[in-house]
Amino acid sequence: MPPALPVTGAWRPGDPVGRRRFARLATDRPFVLEGGGALTDVSIAYETWGELAPDAGNAVLVCHALTGDAHAAGGVGAGHRSPGWWTQLIGPGRPIDTDRYFVVCANVLGGCQGTTGPASPHPEDGRPYGSRFPVVSVRDMVRTQAAVADDLGVRRWLSVVGGSMGGMQVLEWGVMFPERVRSLVPISTAAAASAQQIAWWSTGRRIIRLDPRWRGGDYYDAAPGDGPTQGLAAARMVSQITFRSDDVFTDRFGREVVEPLDGFSLWQRFQVERYLEYHGDKLARRFDANTYLLLTKAMDLHDLGRGRGGLDEAMARITAPTLVMGIDSDTLYPTYQQRHVHEALLAQGTPSSYVEVTSPHGHDGFLIEADQVGIAVAELLATTDKSEV
Amino acid sequence: MPPALPVTGAWRPGDPVGRRRFARLATDRPFVLEGGGALTDVSIAYETWGELAPDAGNAVLVCHALTGDAHAAGGVGAGHRSPGWWTQLIGPGRPIDTDRYFVVCANVLGGCQGTTGPASPHPEDGRPYGSRFPVVSVRDMVRTQAAVADDLGVRRWLSVVGGSMGGMQVLEWGVMFPERVRSLVPISTAAAASAQQIAWWSTGRRIIRLDPRWRGGDYYDAAPGDGPTQGLAAARMVSQITFRSDDVFTDRFGREVVEPLDGFSLWQRFQVERYLEYHGDKLARRFDANTYLLLTKAMDLHDLGRGRGGLDEAMARITAPTLVMGIDSDTLYPTYQQRHVHEALLAQGTPSSYVEVTSPHGHDGFLIEADQVGIAVAELLATTDKSEV
Repeated sequence: MPPALPVTGAWRPGDPVGRRRFARLATDRPFVLEGGGALTDVSIAYETWGELAPDAGNAVLVCHALTGDAHAAGGVGAGHRSPGWWTQLIGPGRPIDTDRYFVVCANVLGGCQGTTGPASPHPEDGRPYGSRFPVVSVRDMVRTQAAVADDLGVRRWLSVVGGSMGGMQVLEWGVMFPERVRSLVPISTAAAASAQQIAWWSTGRRIIRLDPRWRGGDYYDAAPGDGPTQGLAAARMVSQITFRSDDVFTDRFGREVVEPLDGFSLWQRFQVERYLEYHGDKLARRFDANTYLLLTKAMDLHDLGRGRGGLDEAMARITAPTLVMGIDSDTLYPTYQQRHVHEALLAQGTPSSYVEVTSPHGHDGFLIEADQVGIAVAELLATTDKSEV
Repeated sequence: MPPALPVTGAWRPGDPVGRRRFARLATDRPFVLEGGGALTDVSIAYETWGELAPDAGNAVLVCHALTGDAHAAGGVGAGHRSPGWWTQLIGPGRPIDTDRYFVVCANVLGGCQGTTGPASPHPEDGRPYGSRFPVVSVRDMVRTQAAVADDLGVRRWLSVVGGSMGGMQVLEWGVMFPERVRSLVPISTAAAASAQQIAWWSTGRRIIRLDPRWRGGDYYDAAPGDGPTQGLAAARMVSQITFRSDDVFTDRFGREVVEPLDGFSLWQRFQVERYLEYHGDKLARRFDANTYLLLTKAMDLHDLGRGRGGLDEAMARITAPTLVMGIDSDTLYPTYQQRHVHEALLAQGTPSSYVEVTSPHGHDGFLIEADQVGIAVAELLATTDKSEV
């Protein structure tokens, strides 16, 4: 059994704010969601790096993936248990150069690191939403980001950049707000979730539901250590395998065991099991199970074509020059999905380039291969910056 | 919630016997296990097809995979809720031709379809073993099969054939009893479990343990519907994804939903989810969760080289001509593992051929592509039959 953990890894009011700033939405009228339902009094937590130019033309939006948050860059500190998830890419002199660009990253709607989500107080009774929190879509996330842009005075992003679920947001930006993006960088993502992707994420949700401590989603009043951390950890173990690769697991762990025994035992662990447990438990300490449910559902629902006459019609709305990237060893978001996006853009006359990152690391390569990703992103930003507005 | 299910899908004394026969082992002295511990009064359930030749030279052993059993061929019937798992391959005039060969398939040690396993009564108190059942290895399974061969008067198998965990048994037969096998057909398997394979199976075990109805393995006294069926079903959902392929899921399910809704709902299902739930629930009705734990652990422990001075030394003991097969789309037991076995055999001078099955179906291709598998197996059997004994 893991040590006692808090009921939820969600950020709560009263926790250190860190570098977060907050945009408030839906204070006067409800924020109506794509899938029905509405939210009032929504907070969007975001961070910024660099200075916004007087003409607001140097703003870059970075979109985070499933378990990311607004802390894209910077170290561990107040309110931030982990260093920025893309800190090698963002900073002075780095590929997304904060000496030149004003960089923004917002925690997504339904998230658990400052933005309104299932652990947040419901405005009506002040108690956590829990099971009352509505399903949100990638389009809903993007609409909250547009409101942040309005608050910041950014009419048009120099670029919108992100991988995995972040890349879904990038593509939706291109479709929903073509006039507000000068370029796009969708990485390791897809125009629509595939059946296999739905299979993985939906199974993760089933695993969380299996944990009796999930309590139908209303577990925030439970005692410390009595939340659905084991279900979340097990769901994460599954996804951690899909994020990496056979080759890297073989090289790194092989068949090594943690504690050699004379005989066999059902629960004796190989090193790869310890690695997965480590990642599962680590996520359970910093993340909220209900957010995991919501965001994986949002990814399954991701389909640029929904309600827009299909994928081709939706893609046709994307006019911004686009850099599509994929990781050659990615089995979760295989590169045929990124090449499909690239080819569809080219076919309709939207400028697009495709860069395939060479990496043994699988899907997580978009986080790990900062050098290769950085070179391509820096070039796209520089080209966009020089182009006609 | 699924409908009430029995506590375990294990076969129990009193259930219809079907075509099963039983070999009794360890009635006078304990059956000592590779990993320590011992079992007494062990039953091995097996089926046979065809007639054993007077010289006992036409016997073929078929080894089943994780959720298979002795019912390799034939239809649904007494004691058999599912048709034989390789029925297209085994029968009169079929590739493993029961007009020519005497075919044997035994439920593995630790299994739940007639062979002694965790749901069986402990000889000391008559109550199910449950958590008291020891960890078994593929080598233990093979030793019980050798005892069945002794009972049947089969000194030497014409061939030993099997896929996945069955293929592990095939390879162990070659190493443990080189003088008792005239040929081998390991399919979609490996000389040793890889870190990624351990990752998948160990996560499945974690998921079962997460089900409170698993009760540490002692759930056989629970009321109907109160066994760890949901944990087993969820573990199966994970493995079912690894058994198949992205392409087939896309072709078969795409993004179709089961019940279209006006809005979104967290538990609204896509068709691929229904498919996974179907397979999960189906397994939970016919299989025992403790057996799933044990056999996946046996697969993780599978390593021809353990205690034998390494893989090369172990492989060197294999002298029987071998047909190695793999499925080109298999991501769970990728073909590099089978090619490795083939190349190691060739390098040491053991006759070996390698046939790669072309299939979109992934790992399950060894069950689905009966035509391609059958042609190669039939040829190997005929060649072996004609060769010098």
